[in-house]
Amino acid sequence: MLKTPAYAAPSAAAPLVPYTIERREPGPREVLIDILYCGVCHSDVHQARGDWGRMLFPMVPGHEIVGRVAQVGAEVTRWKVGDAVGVGCFVDSCRRCAPCRAGEEQYCDHGMSGTYNSYERDADGRFDKARPTYGGYSTRITVDQDYVLRVPESLPLDRAAPLLCAGITTYSPLKRFGVKPGDEVAVVGLGGLGHMAVKIAAAMGARVTVLSTSEAKRADALALGAADFASTRDGSVFERLALRFDCILDTVSAPHDYNAYLGLLKLDGSLVLLGLPDEPAPVAAGALISKRRRLAGSMIGGIRQTQEMLDFCAAHGIAADIELIGIERINEAYERMLRADVRYRFVIDLASLRAAA
Amino acid sequence: MLKTPAYAAPSAAAPLVPYTIERREPGPREVLIDILYCGVCHSDVHQARGDWGRMLFPMVPGHEIVGRVAQVGAEVTRWKVGDAVGVGCFVDSCRRCAPCRAGEEQYCDHGMSGTYNSYERDADGRFDKARPTYGGYSTRITVDQDYVLRVPESLPLDRAAPLLCAGITTYSPLKRFGVKPGDEVAVVGLGGLGHMAVKIAAAMGARVTVLSTSEAKRADALALGAADFASTRDGSVFERLALRFDCILDTVSAPHDYNAYLGLLKLDGSLVLLGLPDEPAPVAAGALISKRRRLAGSMIGGIRQTQEMLDFCAAHGIAADIELIGIERINEAYERMLRADVRYRFVIDLASLRAAA
Repeated sequence: MLKTPAYAAPSAAAPLVPYTIERREPGPREVLIDILYCGVCHSDVHQARGDWGRMLFPMVPGHEIVGRVAQVGAEVTRWKVGDAVGVGCFVDSCRRCAPCRAGEEQYCDHGMSGTYNSYERDADGRFDKARPTYGGYSTRITVDQDYVLRVPESLPLDRAAPLLCAGITTYSPLKRFGVKPGDEVAVVGLGGLGHMAVKIAAAMGARVTVLSTSEAKRADALALGAADFASTRDGSVFERLALRFDCILDTVSAPHDYNAYLGLLKLDGSLVLLGLPDEPAPVAAGALISKRRRLAGSMIGGIRQTQEMLDFCAAHGIAADIELIGIERINEAYERMLRADVRYRFVIDLASLRAAA
Repeated sequence: MLKTPAYAAPSAAAPLVPYTIERREPGPREVLIDILYCGVCHSDVHQARGDWGRMLFPMVPGHEIVGRVAQVGAEVTRWKVGDAVGVGCFVDSCRRCAPCRAGEEQYCDHGMSGTYNSYERDADGRFDKARPTYGGYSTRITVDQDYVLRVPESLPLDRAAPLLCAGITTYSPLKRFGVKPGDEVAVVGLGGLGHMAVKIAAAMGARVTVLSTSEAKRADALALGAADFASTRDGSVFERLALRFDCILDTVSAPHDYNAYLGLLKLDGSLVLLGLPDEPAPVAAGALISKRRRLAGSMIGGIRQTQEMLDFCAAHGIAADIELIGIERINEAYERMLRADVRYRFVIDLASLRAAA
């Protein structure tokens, strides 16, 4: 085993602290990756603080991982030492169920193996409860070759890290719900997800409108590629933009009125939820029936589509807007994220952890 | 004008009574139809009783109309006297908006002209408030040739009448949400809509399961073509059938828990609401996000698709299961419908109204 420096939350109540984990030597079909950068996702904060029920502690968060291949197993043909690679929100899945066979591993019927706060799998595809997964707040990770992404060399590696979660989370529904050039797309909320949604939807040729409670986001929205901005604190916007959009990506996890946003969709439009509020929210059947609208949800994307997204971003020169930090600032970063004080993603430079080790 | 016997609700508080309306002589592009049969839809009861807000009284309900062409205007080429024809839920629309141009007149941006409780349109496509529409509880109706359906002669005309609303309301979402042979389809509620949904989905080659609160419906469900039946009073059904269905048609307008039904959908499955509960119902974003499910709504269908549905039903020998009544029994029929005491649609034989006139 490979002793590896990391940062871990010892419990839901404690801040993250330096910690040492063990990574396995790569098996015949695995690669060992030296982690260079890891994005900091809102779900890192939620899981490290135990917001979503039973969690596994000590927890090493991080699922927006970019690095370089350091070692490959004997049967690995797709990767070689030095390749720029990424690891996203999962490192394995059952590989047998219909979603896995369809390349939608994130919807594995038996549950994906999350990159952290989850378990590795045995040879039969079952969770191995003796082997918890640890994420990217660490200097290296060992991953099956089939769950590794190629990061195009034209992308800046630090700014590419958030594509592994925020990028695919927004790219996937735009593809799934058929957004095409000329479509009217709205993005609700301009944070880590929202800012990627604007860039990607605009690159797809859509006309993008940002809907935000914060008028202060207007300039950023337009700079990111939005054609329009509307402050939802002004209720008249829901009349002005009625029947406007083909697709709305809703990145907000605070409670809000879905029906108001459904009214902005034209015939056959889709409101796609990416954020997960704590409580169910009331939905009026009439808002769906009257224009054959859909309220849908979407969660990251499969390996194949994640690769497609990375290639798309490289082709369009898209990466995240980030603030690069040393890992010793992670607890401060969490506090700032809770205040929405980041434009638009913290990314950890793991050189800071190597230097400290 | 043509004095025409009808039955009308004088007000929301009064039962239906004999009434005389005037139908116009057919214009150059219109046809006059002798109404033979008219189905009795739940929405007739709701509208006649003022359940849905402001209504137009006196009201002659009825939008499941089958009859024969009695007279055609000078420019009518598509219809000739004696043709078996139908009229559904609308008799006109603006003809200019995107939905109208797409053949989705039911979603007209300016509102369709309902077959009753609505208004005829002027030459510019605007509602003419001086000309309310009156429905099929009458012996004849004058309709623009483009809003008339052909009823295949192989269909029994009385049993074809409910196809004009209950048939298209269930056929349209099955097509729109891509149901194909071998798909698992559930139908929630076995009433007028539900029984048509079972027949049509089965004819499309789907494997149909009926979900009903009433165990007494099991035999009927199977006889109608369902492969399976489950009583939803037994909560364990939501575990047993988890992740089973590609598409669920929900015909129930009483409040119920959408989240429980969302859990029955597999990846990318759709729960399509056809019934309109009075109040919004709580929806958990997680139920949508975790399997990229959709909660959608659908409302009747356009003229082109309604014709397609009639032809489909003729090809598959499908018609509604009905109880034929004289129009003098309409108030009793309403009471029985509210008790769900009909298998599965009342249809008025308009010969009863001609005989009384």
